Parts: sequence; structure tokens; C-alpha cells
Amino acid sequence: MPFRFEILARDSRTQARLGHLTTPHGEFTTPVFMPVGTQASVKTVTPEELLACHVEVVLANTYHLYLRPTHTLIRDLGGLHRFMHWERPILTDSGGFQVYSLAGLRKLTEEGVLFQSHLNGSRHMLTPEKAVEIQQMLGSDIAMVLDECVPYPATYAYALSSQELTTRWARRAKAAHRGTEQALFGIVQGGMYADLREKSAHELVELDFDGYALGGFSVGETKRLMDDLIERTAACLPEEKPRYLMGVGTPADLLRCVKLGVDMFDCVMPTRNARNGCLFTRQGKLIIKNARYAQDTRPVDAQCSCYTCQHYSRAYLRHLFVSEEILGPRLNTIHNLHYYMDVIHKIRAAIVEGQLETLQVEGIIGEHDVEEQA
Amino acid sequence: MPFRFEILARDSRTQARLGHLTTPHGEFTTPVFMPVGTQASVKTVTPEELLACHVEVVLANTYHLYLRPTHTLIRDLGGLHRFMHWERPILTDSGGFQVYSLAGLRKLTEEGVLFQSHLNGSRHMLTPEKAVEIQQMLGSDIAMVLDECVPYPATYAYALSSQELTTRWARRAKAAHRGTEQALFGIVQGGMYADLREKSAHELVELDFDGYALGGFSVGETKRLMDDLIERTAACLPEEKPRYLMGVGTPADLLRCVKLGVDMFDCVMPTRNARNGCLFTRQGKLIIKNARYAQDTRPVDAQCSCYTCQHYSRAYLRHLFVSEEILGPRLNTIHNLHYYMDVIHKIRAAIVEGQLETLQVEGIIGEHDVEEQA
Repeated sequence: MPFRFEILARDSRTQARLGHLTTPHGEFTTPVFMPVGTQASVKTVTPEELLACHVEVVLANTYHLYLRPTHTLIRDLGGLHRFMHWERPILTDSGGFQVYSLAGLRKLTEEGVLFQSHLNGSRHMLTPEKAVEIQQMLGSDIAMVLDECVPYPATYAYALSSQELTTRWARRAKAAHRGTEQALFGIVQGGMYADLREKSAHELVELDFDGYALGGFSVGETKRLMDDLIERTAACLPEEKPRYLMGVGTPADLLRCVKLGVDMFDCVMPTRNARNGCLFTRQGKLIIKNARYAQDTRPVDAQCSCYTCQHYSRAYLRHLFVSEEILGPRLNTIHNLHYYMDVIHKIRAAIVEGQLETLQVEGIIGEHDVEEQA
Repeated sequence: MPFRFEILARDSRTQARLGHLTTPHGEFTTPVFMPVGTQASVKTVTPEELLACHVEVVLANTYHLYLRPTHTLIRDLGGLHRFMHWERPILTDSGGFQVYSLAGLRKLTEEGVLFQSHLNGSRHMLTPEKAVEIQQMLGSDIAMVLDECVPYPATYAYALSSQELTTRWARRAKAAHRGTEQALFGIVQGGMYADLREKSAHELVELDFDGYALGGFSVGETKRLMDDLIERTAACLPEEKPRYLMGVGTPADLLRCVKLGVDMFDCVMPTRNARNGCLFTRQGKLIIKNARYAQDTRPVDAQCSCYTCQHYSRAYLRHLFVSEEILGPRLNTIHNLHYYMDVIHKIRAAIVEGQLETLQVEGIIGEHDVEEQA
């Protein structure tokens, strides 16, 4: 099936929309949250467990897969979906963000970005065309253009020059991206300058992408600034195209940004926190290693219907964590992913029912620690 | 249900038996293989996955659970079965073997063994009565008496003195083990001296245990010596009681020792090897990290019906291993456990069909490396 996005419902008091996205590997509803499967695996869990958590689409990282096992190998093995046994939609990033995060050599030119592998120091050139080529070989359903992530803070002059480079790269990516059912999203940059964000959005919209991402957020700016920039950027984007906020965020971020018109999210938070023993619950975050849970026979969250909460006590999960049993991160991941998807489902229902503005953060989202309440 | 053992069939040309064992938490057929769940978790997998691998009974380690989370906590939480969400039979060891394996303080007296925790150096006294008490609190279906594992090699004088201590301890354990449906097995010791093994067996049989284990094997002796001692010991044990060979072994060991009259086995080999990337196949052992598997689209074992072989290529499993993805050890564990249970099922079928003596090692058991054949 070719890529298609339909808006099914709108919230009358916010910018929130309920949408339906069709990709070559299936459909899903938006707003949507995409767990991160960096190296072709959402850490600790199987695709069947993702489905049981109601996950519909996952993100994989182009940078990591390009270096290992390589995009050509994955293509030869029948593509990323078959390789990782996930036959549903996959979005791949462009690899840019990871390259900029590297500590070692990294040289930016008009042509692209030269970098050294974190694995073995080998040198590679990532260009807009190369990023498209890699993602086409991976066979993801949604590909992202190569962008430059503006450091934070950055001067206006730097942010302007970077934003214009990102536009030129987006044009090259669009030209290179042909003969495929894979969708290609542009990425709005511009640092923390609202006019540059608007300029970026206008230039990308002219290039007519299948969707638009908002990149370079959650890098240290305030929530208020982030919200303001998202709102102003979203106003410049076409209503009929999906909007994807990259790398964000907490459950509360999801709710707030849906109200600003965002349709898609990804974040390592539910999975990484799970491995660190930090569990989301309707009463707040629960740090499973705390001694107070040693004899606690209750599930992590009494209102949760996930596999973990149905079968295991906090005491057992704490035991697995302190005993460094591999099953622990896995049971925690199942719970956190289920929790995130539950938040998304509550948001969707609230949009349909016109209740989004009054959707209580309490009861679905706890950013404080459970321990603080005691 | 109270503990009960019935022999359903015997092989006419070997000592092998097909049996049926009933415990408070369900029944299973023997010969049986018990995966090891040291800290109340068979590493990486859930109980549902164990069932899918046809696992019927698991072993848990008393030493580890006594120290963490403690046997009293597990009792307070409703027992080990509920704690770890495994409602099928559980066998617990006595803790003795781990204590003797400790590098630190360890002092053996007539009363018991004084040792220091590997976790925090705290001092503990393990006596035959204490080992029974701990296992009763854990609520396992089959408990083991505290024994002394004779070091290898050991002098005849040491082995004799140790064997006699083990008998005295067994008598105390039997006296302490009352008012429970839990079964209690004695453990035949005697080092590598056949007459001491026979003496040990005779003394334990007089105490009338629910079953008899053969301890202290696979410590460096030859297979030939082990087989000879097992054969001579088994001849001293009552036909109508189950026989359990502790800590053994490879698939070939299982087949050989079933022919010597052994009914029950446990070993970390399938699970530990899995985590190290060593997979059992009908063609031999497969070291998944080898570069030759990088582009190999075949499953680990084309004749295997496990979840891993049904959905993943060797190339993907190799990628998970070299990328240190947690899903790797898990998919490998599922395969190896499934493989071991398949070996057990083939052995059972061969006993029923009178084909055990001619059961080909080839086709079910490969101890060599697949790589060596190429």
C-alpha cells in the first residue's frame, strides 16, 4: 500500500488531530508513539511482545545499522522487516543525529558529514543522498532526510546558516528519493529561533514531503520555549500531512504536544528507564530497587493489564533487579511500553470524545516519584 | 497431590526406564531434564516460554535464594512457585554444592558448614536441619538433603570419612523433614571409589528416601569412570524410586546415563551456553558469533520447531550477539532448551519403542562443532 494520511477527527479546543496513516507494511492511528529499536531490536523484547503492548510502529537507527550489520547485508537478507521479524511499519532516522552526537572526528561540509565509526574508528561520509540510499536498502516505511542538528545554545548566525544547509540537503534528499513506496519526511530545524523555524517549515513545505518532523528539541531548552516553537512551527505546516516530534518525551510531553498538533513521537524513555528499573505508573514513577518494595506483593500498577502486572509482584521485580537477572529489564520494558501505549490510547479516545483539554494528567501520567507521595 | 513415582516401561537391553512422577504441583514423565533457575528465574526466559519449550520441572538454588531475597521472604510472599510465576514442579538443591564452591571462608564440622555470603561476607551456618527448613519455606516439590561434595581427587580415607558424614547428615535431614507433601531425596556420595558409592547407597536406602541422587560427578573424572560408578550405584538403589544425576550434562551424557538407569537430570549447560552464543543443533554445536553466519539466512537448526528457529536467521542471531543485544541470549536460550527437551522426548520415545540401544547419537546429538565438519 502506498503512503497515505487521513485526518479522522479534530479537537475543537486544541490543535490535536486523530489520524490514520497507511504504509507499505500496514496502517496505524495517530497520535502514535514509536518505541526505539536502535540495532534492529527493541531492547529485551520480541515483536510478539511489542504487539501485546499494542505497539504499531517502531523506529530503527540508520547510523547503527549502516555500521553493523550494514545496510547492504540487511538488503541482501530481505530487508529490515524480515531481518528483525517485525512485519509492521518501521520508521528510520537519517543517521544525522547519532553522527552529531559522536565524540570523535566529525567534519561538516556542504557535501555532507565525515565521521568516524564508534565501533572501529573507520571513516565514513554521510551525504543526503547516502542517507536516502541506506534507508531504501533497509526498506523502512518512512525515511527521514539528513539534517544538521543545531547545537544548543547556538548563535542566530549559526542557526540560520545551519537551517539553510538543512534545506539544501532536504532538496538533494528529495531528488535522490525515487521509485519507491517508502515515504520521506523533511525535518524542520532552526534552533531556538522562532523565525528560523518558520522559515525552515516554509522552505520544506515547498519541497512537498510526505510528512514533516520537528528536530532539535529536548536538548536543554525549557518546556515553555519548546511548546512555543512547536506551536509556531505547526502553524506553518500543511494540515493534511503528519507531524513528527523527534526524540520526545515523557507521557506529559506527549499529551502537551498532541494539543499543539503533533501526530507522531519516538523516545528511548520507556525502554531505557525500564532497564534502569524506573517504572511508570498511574501514581507516578516507581524506582523498583527501593527497599520498600522488597515485600510488596502488589503489581507495579494495579490498573495495568500488561503481562508483567498480571503475573509478577513488585517484590519479584525488585529481586530480579537487585540480583541482576536478565528477565528484570524485560518485564520492566513490557510494563513501560504498555503504559506508554495506554497513555496514547487515552489521548486518542479523548480527542474522539472531545475531552482532550480536560484529560487529567493525574490518573494517566505521573512524572513525580511514587516515593515522594508517601 | 502427594509424591508418587511409577515405572511405565523398561528398556529390555539397558537399565533405562520410562517413569511418571507426581508432585504437589503436577506430574511429569521421566527421563526428565530440569533447567536451572538459580535465583528464581531461568535466565532470560519467562515461565510461558519454558512451557513452550516443553519444560516440565525446574531447579532452583537454595543457597542463592536463602541469601537473597531470603527463604522467609519467599514464604511470606506465598512460596517460590507464586513468587516466580511457575506453578509446575520445582526441585531445590540443598545449598551444599554452592557453599563448597565458595572461595572464601568455609568451615566444615559435624554440626554443619559455616560459610560467608558471596554477596556481603556475612556468616551463616548451614546444617542438615537448616537446609530442610529453608527448602520447606521455599515450598519446592522436591528437596535435597545436605551432603558434603567430596573434592576431586580425594584420598580413600577422606572420601570414606566424608561419605559417612553425608549419611549422618542424611539421617538428621530425614528426621527434620516432617509434616509436608514435599519429597526428600538422599544424595549418594563416596568420591570416585565404587565400594564407597555402594556403601553410601545402601546406607541411604535404609533411611528410605523418596528418591536418590548421585552427587559429586562431572568434577574432572573420565566419562568411563563416571559411567562405571553410576552403573554400580544404580544397581544398589531400589527400582521403584527415581534416580537423579546432579549437574550432568551434555546431550550425549543424558543418553548414556539414561541407559545406566538415571531418571532425572539438571545442568546449566543449555542456558549458559546459550548466553555465550553456543547453540546445540542436530549437526553439532554452532558458535553464533562466527563470521561465517553473518549472511546465513537459515535458522539455527532446520529441523527445530522452536520460536527462535521459526522466526529468525543465523545472521540476525549473530547480529544480536555481536551487538550485545539482550534479545540474543534470550532467543538462544529458547533454542537450546527446546533442543534439550527434544533430546529427552526422543529418548522417551525410544524407550517405549524398544529402540534405545540403537538410538543414533547422530541426528539428535552433536558434541562437535558444526564448523569442524565444513
